[in-house]
Amino acid sequence: MASTVTIHYCTQCRWMLRSAWMAQELLSTFDGDISELTLKPGTGGVFEVWVDESRVWSRKEMDGFPDIVTLKQRVRDVIAPDRSLGHADKPG
Amino acid sequence: MASTVTIHYCTQCRWMLRSAWMAQELLSTFDGDISELTLKPGTGGVFEVWVDESRVWSRKEMDGFPDIVTLKQRVRDVIAPDRSLGHADKPG
Repeated sequence: MASTVTIHYCTQCRWMLRSAWMAQELLSTFDGDISELTLKPGTGGVFEVWVDESRVWSRKEMDGFPDIVTLKQRVRDVIAPDRSLGHADKPG
Repeated sequence: MASTVTIHYCTQCRWMLRSAWMAQELLSTFDGDISELTLKPGTGGVFEVWVDESRVWSRKEMDGFPDIVTLKQRVRDVIAPDRSLGHADKPG
């Protein structure tokens, strides 16, 4: 069953563009596995990524933004744990 | 009260990028008036834009894609009917 992804981002911090970029990356990589990807404007420095009921990233708790490979690995770990992300998974 | 916007698009037709672009345009123009913008992958040539319960665009019924000014006017007509879109509203 396909999952929902939500990217909750701070508009005061002008994080919409990077959130929309990450949304496009996730929708491409997990084509067919994401039923809905929601961009959710917020305030106060929020940047969180949720997959269904799991929070896979929190800027405040993880001290910053994920690089896209790390974010995809975390989303994969919820959506399709056995799936390889190809080059993204291989160091070097 | 802020509204929800959904862009339902066909992945077979590769319409994710234009849908994500329109999402960014709407989130910028209607900053503070959109509580959630959802990108919803689909198939079979679907391209629809919904604002809350109102469908403001349908590719099949309107024979194609909206230009961004037309789309913003239709979204505005639901979200903030009295709001001017500035230059976008003035011909010429």
